[in-house]
Order: sequence, then C-alpha cells, then structure tokens
Amino acid sequence: MTTIDLQPVKGVRDFHPEDMRVRTWLFGLWREVARRYGFEEYDACVLESEELYTRKAGDEITKQLYNFATKGEDRVALRPEMTPSLARLVLGKGAALALPARWFAIPQCFRYENMQRGRKREHFQWNMDIIGLASVAAEAELMAAQVDFLRLAGLDVGTAKPDVVLRVSNRQVIQHFLAGLGIEGDSFAAVCVIIDKRDKIGDEATAVELAKLGLTAESSAAIISLLDTTGLDQVAAKVPADNPGLLALRELLALAEASGIAHLVKIDLSVIRGLSYYTGTVWELFDASGSLPRAIAGGGRYDKLMETFGGPPTPMVGFGFGDVVIVEILKERGLLPTPPRGIDDVVYPMAAAEFPVATRIAAFLRAQGRGVAVDYSGRRFKHVIGRAEADGAKRLLVLGGDEVKAGVVTVRTLGPEKVEEKVPLATFGA
Amino acid sequence: MTTIDLQPVKGVRDFHPEDMRVRTWLFGLWREVARRYGFEEYDACVLESEELYTRKAGDEITKQLYNFATKGEDRVALRPEMTPSLARLVLGKGAALALPARWFAIPQCFRYENMQRGRKREHFQWNMDIIGLASVAAEAELMAAQVDFLRLAGLDVGTAKPDVVLRVSNRQVIQHFLAGLGIEGDSFAAVCVIIDKRDKIGDEATAVELAKLGLTAESSAAIISLLDTTGLDQVAAKVPADNPGLLALRELLALAEASGIAHLVKIDLSVIRGLSYYTGTVWELFDASGSLPRAIAGGGRYDKLMETFGGPPTPMVGFGFGDVVIVEILKERGLLPTPPRGIDDVVYPMAAAEFPVATRIAAFLRAQGRGVAVDYSGRRFKHVIGRAEADGAKRLLVLGGDEVKAGVVTVRTLGPEKVEEKVPLATFGA
Repeated sequence: MTTIDLQPVKGVRDFHPEDMRVRTWLFGLWREVARRYGFEEYDACVLESEELYTRKAGDEITKQLYNFATKGEDRVALRPEMTPSLARLVLGKGAALALPARWFAIPQCFRYENMQRGRKREHFQWNMDIIGLASVAAEAELMAAQVDFLRLAGLDVGTAKPDVVLRVSNRQVIQHFLAGLGIEGDSFAAVCVIIDKRDKIGDEATAVELAKLGLTAESSAAIISLLDTTGLDQVAAKVPADNPGLLALRELLALAEASGIAHLVKIDLSVIRGLSYYTGTVWELFDASGSLPRAIAGGGRYDKLMETFGGPPTPMVGFGFGDVVIVEILKERGLLPTPPRGIDDVVYPMAAAEFPVATRIAAFLRAQGRGVAVDYSGRRFKHVIGRAEADGAKRLLVLGGDEVKAGVVTVRTLGPEKVEEKVPLATFGA
Repeated sequence: MTTIDLQPVKGVRDFHPEDMRVRTWLFGLWREVARRYGFEEYDACVLESEELYTRKAGDEITKQLYNFATKGEDRVALRPEMTPSLARLVLGKGAALALPARWFAIPQCFRYENMQRGRKREHFQWNMDIIGLASVAAEAELMAAQVDFLRLAGLDVGTAKPDVVLRVSNRQVIQHFLAGLGIEGDSFAAVCVIIDKRDKIGDEATAVELAKLGLTAESSAAIISLLDTTGLDQVAAKVPADNPGLLALRELLALAEASGIAHLVKIDLSVIRGLSYYTGTVWELFDASGSLPRAIAGGGRYDKLMETFGGPPTPMVGFGFGDVVIVEILKERGLLPTPPRGIDDVVYPMAAAEFPVATRIAAFLRAQGRGVAVDYSGRRFKHVIGRAEADGAKRLLVLGGDEVKAGVVTVRTLGPEKVEEKVPLATFGA
C-alpha cells in the first residue's frame, strides 16, 4: 500500500509530545491567571449550528466558515470564535446565572483563511469574559489579566520600555462622529468592519470600500483622518465632554493606573476590531517593537449581542488571546520553557523472567505517586541508561537474574553523582 | 429578533462551569495516571483527512463520519477515533522516535450515531498507546493504568467483589479457529466486525450476517459457540499448546498477577472489538454489576496498522476510555466530586469611588497567587456576602468610603467563625 499523507490537513497543527509540553505549559499559565481573577472555565462543542454565525451577515468571519451539512442534513460549522457559543450558554442559563459572571475558556477555533505568511487555519484561543457588569472596571480587570499572563510568561511589562502596548479605543467615540455624518445602526457596524482593515489595505482601498457603502469622499476622508487620533486629550478635543466613550476611556485609565498597567495603555482610535458586535471599549495587545503586524490579542465590549440573540439586555465584555502569535514571540525571545518529561524512575528488567518483579516494583512506586517507566525493551544496559538519562529520570532500577535471585535491585542515581547501591526488593514491595 | 436555539447541535454537549469542573477533575486524574506510567501527551487536530478513515473500508466507523469538503475542496472529517492520527504522527516521526514510546491523549471524537438511548455523538476519550513493544507487558501495563484510574476515582477494584471486570481475549485464538474454516486475511477482519455485534444483535442476526459473507450455517454455528468460551483452561482445550494467542493470554495473566489486577481479569472469547485493525490481545472494561450494556473502555493490540499505512512493521497496543460512561457510573454511585470554585478572597468596593483601591488590593493579592474576585456589582452587603459564601470564598474584604478614609479595609473571615477585623490598607499594598 502507498504511504498515507503524513501531514495534517492544510493549515492545522499536530502536537507531538515536545509541542504538547509547551502547549500544556501555556494553557496552565492561562488557567492560573484565570483562577487568580476568580474566573470559571466552561466549554462548548467545536461543532455549532451554522446559524449562530450567519444570523447577522457582513462579518468576514462568516465567509471563512468550515461549514457543512451533517448526515441528518443539519447545517453546522466549526466555531470560528467562542463569543456566540458563550452568549448561547449564558442565555440558556437565564436567571439561574448569578451576575456578574466571570467565565473563561480555551477553545480551538477554525477559520478558512488564505494560507499566505504562515497563517494557520486553527488556533487555540484563551477567552475571558465578564457578563453583567456595565462598568469599565470589567475592561480594566481583563487587561490586567492579560498583562499578568505576559509577566508570568517572562515578558517585560514593568519597565519604562515594556515589550507590549495595549492600544485602546471606544466605539462610542467613533459612533458619535459617524452619527454626525448620518451613519448609524447597521451602517455604523459595516463602517467599523471596513475601517478595521485600514492597517492592512491602506487609506486608498479603505476609501474605495467606504464609497461602496455610499459614503462621500469627504466623509471617508474625515473618518480616516479621525483614526489617527491618539491620546485622551486629542480624543477629548473631538467629542463633547459627556461623550460616553470619552468618559469610559477616562475611567478606564484611572483603573489601569490602580492595577499598575497604565504605562502600557495607549489611547488610539485606529483600533476598531473586525467584529460588528462591539459597542464600547475595544482594545488590542501589540508587540511594542512593532515587528509583528498582527495583534497578540484583542478584546472589546459587546453590550447588544444578547439582544440580537433574542435575550435580555446584558452588558458583556471579553477578550480572545490566540496561542500562535504569543508562542512565536516567546520563542523569538528565548522565553519558551522546555518542561521536563516527568519521569522519576526507570525500572529495567534485563530479561522477560524479571518482568513480573519489575511490574510489582513499578506498581509500588506508582502508588506513591512517582512517575515510573518500565523499560521492557530487552536492550543492553548502555542503551537503557542513555534513554533514562535523556528522559530526565532521577533513578534507574536494574533487575538482572542475579539481583532477583539475591532478593535485591540495583538502584542507580542518575545525573552527575551516579551513586549505585543494592536495595532489598522488599523495600519496593516486591 | 427571534431567540436563537439555546441547545447545542444534536448529540453534542455544552460544559457549563459546573460540568467543566467535573471534566477538569476527570482529565486531571487521567493525566496523573499517565504521568505515573511515564506516558507523554500528544494531540492532533480534530479535523483530519477523510482518507485516513476510508482507506480501509468495512468498519462501521467509516459510515458514521462527520465528513465534508472544505472551501478548497479538500475532503476532511472530524476524527471518529484517535488511533489513525496517532499512527500518522508516529510514522511522521520515523526513526527519530525512540521506541518503545508511550503516548497518551484526550481527544474529542465524533461519530454520527443513532440518538437512541441517550447516546452522544461526541465524547472525550482518554487514549494510551505503547508503540514498539511486542511483549504483552505492554497490555498488562495499560490495563493496570486503567485500574489505577478507577481506584483514584473511588471505585472498588481491590476486594473480592470489585466494581469492574476486564474481559480479555486474543484475536489469534479466534484466528486459528477461523483459519481452520478457511477464513483468513480480510475475511477474518470482516468476521470480527460482525461477531463483535453479537451481544447487541443476538445469535440469529449474527448468523444471518455471517451467511452474507458466504459462511455455511455449520461454520457460523461453530464460530458463535466458540465465543462462549471463557477461562484459560477452556481456551487451552480448543487451540494447540503453542497457539500465540493462548501463550500471550497466559503471559498476560502472570503480569496481571504481578500488578495486582489478576482478580479483575476474565478470559472471554466473546470480546472481539469492532475495529478491523486489531491483531492480538483485545479487552473491554465492564461494570461488574452488568447494569450497563456498554463497555466502559476497550483496548487492543494492532501490530499491522502501521504497515497498512505504508510504514514499517511496528507493534502497537492501546486503549480508548470515554468520558461519558464513566461519569454516569461515578454519578450513579455518588463518587463525582464537587470541586470548589477556587476563590480565596472577594474584595467588595461599596461604590465606584472605591474601585481603584479595590483594584490595587486585588492586584496585590493576585501577585501572591491568591484567587481574587472583585465584586464591582454595587449591590448591598447582604447580597455580596451571600454570593461570596456561595462561591466558597475564605475572606471578604469590605471597602466603604469610611474605611478608605480611615486607611483600612474590613476583613471578614467567612465560614462558621465569621471573625471581622480592620486591617490597614498598606498591609494589602494599597
């Protein structure tokens, strides 16, 4: 028979044990931060109803679905993002859910994207969401959690020249401005989706897209120039003092100060986010060196999503933090750890006659919680000890015929010391 | 807008936080056992090439695929089981993989099954596989790992009336017998797939299916009666003394004795397993009470799979252990734990003016690794303390305007004692 294709499906990843150890470490940090912030983990199935994403058309995400019909003719899709599933679960809980709720998840998400520049078609995405809290204290908490994770991962978030920047905007600022141009409701969301792409496609193409939406050249130019606004003072100069977006940004900065992350925050109206459901604060976490064109993570407030799903008005805010970009950054900076295999003891029965006693010793040690590999390979000592050392084992327990006859096992401490002693089998319950 | 469908896709599950805590506990036990046995975790994508499953037709599993074409017209499928992906990864490693290798994974697997009797269309499945070890020491180790998990989960696996039974067979016994009837190669695999269903469909339907394969009524009757063979002595009476299946069962029993699980093992030729790729030992773990018609877990040796994938001959053996049945059993017996939320402190700023100082205190406590929820809800004390207690918090830190003015925070120990004291803000870095 011909050999099968050894590659995974285009754009998706395998996790060999050495990759998996890194992933487990990363997910462990995410879970640790979520725990410190009092968040509860949830999950939904990667397979969702297609309608959950196509209900409100227009977002690029709906054009990138892995969607299909099941054998029962149900239209389904692999989730491209977690927020609609979260909204579904929260809506399902109804009044039984104590609010505010803090939920997190680490879903794998799928988007059928162009494969240029090594982009993947799936990633795992750390999601943290706060449900039922209208205050920007929620946003501040989520940003602080992102920064805490970066700190635990070894990045510099504390000095005057930190590794990352949080670019923050508020759609209510843009909204006020667009309302003045007569752009409201669904048109507002459509404009947001277009101007979000400006960094990628440039001013000219952005203007062309806006013209397709019916905007005049003057309106387009005004919008594009607005996006260059940075800093609270510049924003304050462009909207009324009681603009809710401006007030929210001001309050957010005060809380960011309190949680020690204000030096990382840069108010920047060019941050839009590509999803139409955001209503207030939007933010993106970037590599401060600017060497990566893609955001590390992004988040935002989406206070109307529950209503578009048929639920009661519910303030919600959350972020998605993918595993691909951050691992690239950490690798580039030599910050990826090489977690150990976790093997304490290797038991080595030299021949099949010693298998039962080796099995008894292994059972005894495992019952104490030790990590034990029994080397049943029948290979020579040199090979076995080499493998045990490569696997990071602390001890090698050698069982030859002579040893078992004498009622002992040779215990060799691995590592630089290489102490060796004969220990009665009874010590190991054998 | 009408309300979205609150249910997940038919046959798949949501994991609300309370379900997720149980899942995390279960996966934690699986990982702990795998670690004790020196196994390394790996993963592949839930999306695989369809060809990986349809290459060798005939198995029921290929008729239950969630398969579809991507936007790029690649034929893909959600994995129905993990073994083909494992074989693909191992084959990809080639000579770089030190053998024997011990790999485990907890993949979510999908099968489009009939929905009767509350069966799901997805489950998570703990997979442990040993690659490159021909000795039944591998099987013995895998069975011992299953039993260790059951022990850690609280089931009785140690007494004379244990909760589970390991029903074990070896396809080489059946193979010898069928070869005598002229049934070999692919026909042998096809017969195995049919007689595996005997428990579900009964003797009569089994005979009908075998007749379709061209077997005579006498052959069918002989095969069906062979399946009633139990115990090593009965098996020994039916095959030559040097039958490799018999020898393997004998050696396996000796090693099961050494690892303390022999009392759970029942040799039973009716165990076949429904996958055509098994070549040697096959086993199923059952609830000993017989109250559940489905196996809790199953495993087997598949020494030829790598060759059918175009790779070198590689002995392999492994098991799959689903999350659905075991959780049902543990729930039924009251063994499912209710893991705590993991919140240590709730910080309660009574009004927005106290948000910044609450944020500073939370940051201080989180940096120490404590689980901290800040209650920004602005609700009344009675509500906040009720929620904090319900969430299992150990302390409530109250910040009213008076407290902050006085430079203190009221720290209330929750639980039966209810100690309350004023602590300087500086103690909490605020």
